[in-house]
Amino acid sequence: VHAILDAGLMCCIAAIRDARPVATPTIYWRKGEKIYWHGAAGGASAGGAADVCLTVALLDGLVLARSALRHSVQYRSVMVFGRARQVMDDQEKLGALEGLFERLYPGRWPKVRPPSLSELAATAVAALDIEEVSAKVRGEGPVDLEQDLGLPVWAGVIPVALTTGAPVPQDGTAADGAPVARVT
Amino acid sequence: VHAILDAGLMCCIAAIRDARPVATPTIYWRKGEKIYWHGAAGGASAGGAADVCLTVALLDGLVLARSALRHSVQYRSVMVFGRARQVMDDQEKLGALEGLFERLYPGRWPKVRPPSLSELAATAVAALDIEEVSAKVRGEGPVDLEQDLGLPVWAGVIPVALTTGAPVPQDGTAADGAPVARVT
Repeated sequence: VHAILDAGLMCCIAAIRDARPVATPTIYWRKGEKIYWHGAAGGASAGGAADVCLTVALLDGLVLARSALRHSVQYRSVMVFGRARQVMDDQEKLGALEGLFERLYPGRWPKVRPPSLSELAATAVAALDIEEVSAKVRGEGPVDLEQDLGLPVWAGVIPVALTTGAPVPQDGTAADGAPVARVT
Repeated sequence: VHAILDAGLMCCIAAIRDARPVATPTIYWRKGEKIYWHGAAGGASAGGAADVCLTVALLDGLVLARSALRHSVQYRSVMVFGRARQVMDDQEKLGALEGLFERLYPGRWPKVRPPSLSELAATAVAALDIEEVSAKVRGEGPVDLEQDLGLPVWAGVIPVALTTGAPVPQDGTAADGAPVARVT
């Protein structure tokens, strides 16, 4: 579960709002047995103390079979159920935000201007304990029927992954080069 | 909204089950003003006639600023709200599945063994009308405070995209080469 959570960047957080289900996408990160994300400042969306289901799904490959309905995908997914809460303590909030930087840009946190107290106060961070969890993994290739194996159709796996492109510096940026971002 | 939906592969479908929110990840595709996905055969999960929120989120880039809390991401996201239904008509189901193939592997549908009637009956497909929709896009680079612009910190955008790797043919597959998969 930790390995899958640590390989993902985006999650969907399902919550119930006005008796209807809502899935909100956001960046998340793990620190120990907690998952953090930026919550809406006012405690709206899934940010308040509320039942949520946080789902991470990583697409790893396309599985091509010889018959139409045996096509599939390779994936890893995790669903974490629990009660999300807003992080109120400034120290926990600061530590959580540093965790996001370490997740995405190891070593960058000490280089950027740290948050001011007012910036920190205006930033909502929500947390969810990793307690009730379900994980699914599919890593195998195509499983065709015996009678289909001889069909003249390409079968196999096309790997899929999130990759980074060439960094685009902003005009006037320091020339020390872009950091390496860890996206998987 | 169509353009964002057509660029995504995976969605999360939020539904309410036993009074709790659940976000289920799945492959989806669009055909006209409908979104389709494989539902659980028994009408479990989000597959039955039920209120759902189908969310697609595409991560396009990491936005690196000079101060910690101005870091952000570039993304496109769509939330579709409505009532999901199971597709019961065999012709609509077959057309929907062909739509998935055209989405992922243009031209491949006529080459694979088509579904038998029993395979089709055992395959659940769910549909959602694109009516109540919300879309969000963030495409800009870092927006630093004036006073931070001179800091010696790299700022800019690191593009992120889903990409395909080298196809891995299954032992004994036809040697006609892998099809091109469209993943964005």
